[in-house]
Amino acid sequence: MDTDRTGEALAALATELRVGERTPSAYATTVRDRIDERDDDVRAWVDGGKSRAWLRAEADALGDRYPDPDPSQGAEHGGDRPSLFGVPVGVKDIFHVDGLATRAGSELPVGALAGPESTAVRRLRDAGAYVAGKTHTTEFAYFAPGPTRNPHDLDRTPGGSSSGSAAAVASGTAPLALGTQTVGSVIRPAAFCGVVGFKPTRGRIPTDGVIPLSKSLDHVGTFTRDAVGASLAASVLLDGWDDERASEPDEAATLGVPDDLYLDQASDAGRKAFERALDALANAGYDLARVAAIPDIDDVNDRHNTLVAAEAALAHGEWYDRYASRYADATRELIEDGRSTPVSALVRGRRGRNELRDSLAASAAEHGIDAWVAPAAPGPAPGGIDDTGDPMMNLPWTHAGLPTVSLPAGDVDGLPVGVQVAAGFGEDERLLSRAEAIADAVAGAA
Amino acid sequence: MDTDRTGEALAALATELRVGERTPSAYATTVRDRIDERDDDVRAWVDGGKSRAWLRAEADALGDRYPDPDPSQGAEHGGDRPSLFGVPVGVKDIFHVDGLATRAGSELPVGALAGPESTAVRRLRDAGAYVAGKTHTTEFAYFAPGPTRNPHDLDRTPGGSSSGSAAAVASGTAPLALGTQTVGSVIRPAAFCGVVGFKPTRGRIPTDGVIPLSKSLDHVGTFTRDAVGASLAASVLLDGWDDERASEPDEAATLGVPDDLYLDQASDAGRKAFERALDALANAGYDLARVAAIPDIDDVNDRHNTLVAAEAALAHGEWYDRYASRYADATRELIEDGRSTPVSALVRGRRGRNELRDSLAASAAEHGIDAWVAPAAPGPAPGGIDDTGDPMMNLPWTHAGLPTVSLPAGDVDGLPVGVQVAAGFGEDERLLSRAEAIADAVAGAA
Repeated sequence: MDTDRTGEALAALATELRVGERTPSAYATTVRDRIDERDDDVRAWVDGGKSRAWLRAEADALGDRYPDPDPSQGAEHGGDRPSLFGVPVGVKDIFHVDGLATRAGSELPVGALAGPESTAVRRLRDAGAYVAGKTHTTEFAYFAPGPTRNPHDLDRTPGGSSSGSAAAVASGTAPLALGTQTVGSVIRPAAFCGVVGFKPTRGRIPTDGVIPLSKSLDHVGTFTRDAVGASLAASVLLDGWDDERASEPDEAATLGVPDDLYLDQASDAGRKAFERALDALANAGYDLARVAAIPDIDDVNDRHNTLVAAEAALAHGEWYDRYASRYADATRELIEDGRSTPVSALVRGRRGRNELRDSLAASAAEHGIDAWVAPAAPGPAPGGIDDTGDPMMNLPWTHAGLPTVSLPAGDVDGLPVGVQVAAGFGEDERLLSRAEAIADAVAGAA
Repeated sequence: MDTDRTGEALAALATELRVGERTPSAYATTVRDRIDERDDDVRAWVDGGKSRAWLRAEADALGDRYPDPDPSQGAEHGGDRPSLFGVPVGVKDIFHVDGLATRAGSELPVGALAGPESTAVRRLRDAGAYVAGKTHTTEFAYFAPGPTRNPHDLDRTPGGSSSGSAAAVASGTAPLALGTQTVGSVIRPAAFCGVVGFKPTRGRIPTDGVIPLSKSLDHVGTFTRDAVGASLAASVLLDGWDDERASEPDEAATLGVPDDLYLDQASDAGRKAFERALDALANAGYDLARVAAIPDIDDVNDRHNTLVAAEAALAHGEWYDRYASRYADATRELIEDGRSTPVSALVRGRRGRNELRDSLAASAAEHGIDAWVAPAAPGPAPGGIDDTGDPMMNLPWTHAGLPTVSLPAGDVDGLPVGVQVAAGFGEDERLLSRAEAIADAVAGAA
């Protein structure tokens, strides 16, 4: 499937919709046509996506709410239309959306999981977007996979847990999709699917209305086709987004490379692709600082995974008590492990998040590092769809709560690979403003 | 000390302040005079209370903000003055108050515990009250006592953990005080000190800005001299307070008595005093239904105490890691116990809260019970101030999150005893509207 030519970059699309060059209804039809064409194979959308009539009704309602801009009032800027006017969004099926069931990739009764609409979805609606449907997630955003396939190779996983959201953007059936990441559930599938994934600083998008996996580690994130689109979505979704900081020019930056046991976790192919991306960055004028930034990666991995298990046991307490037999084996093991974990491990895990954040900040300060770069996944998407791949390259950044973005960086034997860029805590605007130039530098590097 | 004649009932005082019969400044002086007179003995106030000048400045600022009501604009109702205009409030020293340090009865450095002002305090300020100072708490609202003594007998405990708040209201140095309850820290000291303690339904007063002991069990509550005052304070503090429901007439009610192993926990003296209160209620026309409502009290006690320990270990994680040696033995044992607790016990404890709430509701429905009555403490205040007494009579109501109020019910050998009344979840308005008549019935019963 030639995916590169089929999806719209979010910012350009949003402009066309705002100024009236495209209508929400016509674009809804385009999207539905593509779902018809591609989603029998890719299976990004729950229940094959919403019907043509349903999508048209949602799109028409927006047209009614925000009429054509008055040409005398600056129609070329879209008048009063909000920034995501008419944009259809794919929403990972662990977000509550009014009017749509939440199944969370699970066999639990729908009523057990119901709840009020999430703030993240509400913010997109307030910006003029509409929910085009739910996208497949692994069970409860852990590892038991859904039916989604990688648009670049249908015999491979799209990654997870935000499998459907990544695949929908990659197959051109959504210009924007919501996901979540507790270990590597946004950045890894973005890399496997060749799109841009963004996971903001912990806490900058509220996680209410999202079925929790690990309350202190869950992050809401986005999928778009490019970094500009990620910025546009972030400007709507993040608490306290600062346009001014986001538009500061990208001066020559020093990029830190955590060249230690952490980096050794990548596969040979992934490591080679990453080194080619580093060469491309050096050629583009970036300074690279190779630093042993996460030498204690084994400890970090251990305390993060323990914390995920313990908090999953807490979050799923009553659901699991009632419906344990309906849980997939992997999730059941996680929760049972979590239940037997002592509270001390929770305390240690939560404290460790701050310690890693502080040590990375100290290391960045010491070496004049503006952002970190790392492989977005150990390598390209593994074969088969029973395993969504390993999130280990994403884990420490999630643990520390730092903002990260995955940028397409060429391919290995035709399969996309990505570079992951991380900035300091709260530096989402700077990260995304830098991401554009970094994306240009690494595109096609591998 | 003749405490009964020295303190003001909150509602009458607030009316006098609003209509201008008393001024905030004059009342601040009165309160400071009483602190001078009594608090060297009672030691309800941290650092002996705030200075005369400080209190006057706070009171004067309110007078400036809300000038004398215009006689032509209904001066007899206080004009635009809010309902607690000019009322000084004693605040348990685990609430953050802007401008005052939070010590939480502990030896931790003040900077370690600092945080933004609590919503509860903010709501009182918005209603025209001011903070008159911090009152002593046991260490971190657990069992290691502060210096406060029982105003009715200086050789006895005032109860805890809200020791200073109960003693301040009992000794007439505050007409209203804030406390918190995680097991029995409002209702028990209210009973020991002969005042009215009110603990609302779990969640109806936000607990932000309060040093947590157990986040899922902590409740903010109040101390006043009578039930009418508790209603007035509740109308300001509680989410969604419904004046209409609070003013419904108190029809003849059926009061449930949990006559089972729970009740057997009271002392002989406490049990006899409670039976006299029940006789008084029967004489006043209440129907009494003796029901085995909490036969599994041992399980309830166990899972509640386990939950307190585990959540204290979580809440105190980083503080304890850094300052363990500064913790009192009792609190250190609690946290160490909590750290070794498996997550499964947390899950079980949290689930158990809902199960007890449901079983009490079912029992009430089956027997036509409008409210529950029980001893507010096992007996009168024990001797000495090294032990704040046992919260076991309060524990199940806190576990279930039900609203409870402690009403003075006479004395045993000159020491106050109280009756605890509990209503269904969310039925705070009905509870407090009933409490007035119940208080009249049981006053002086023992």
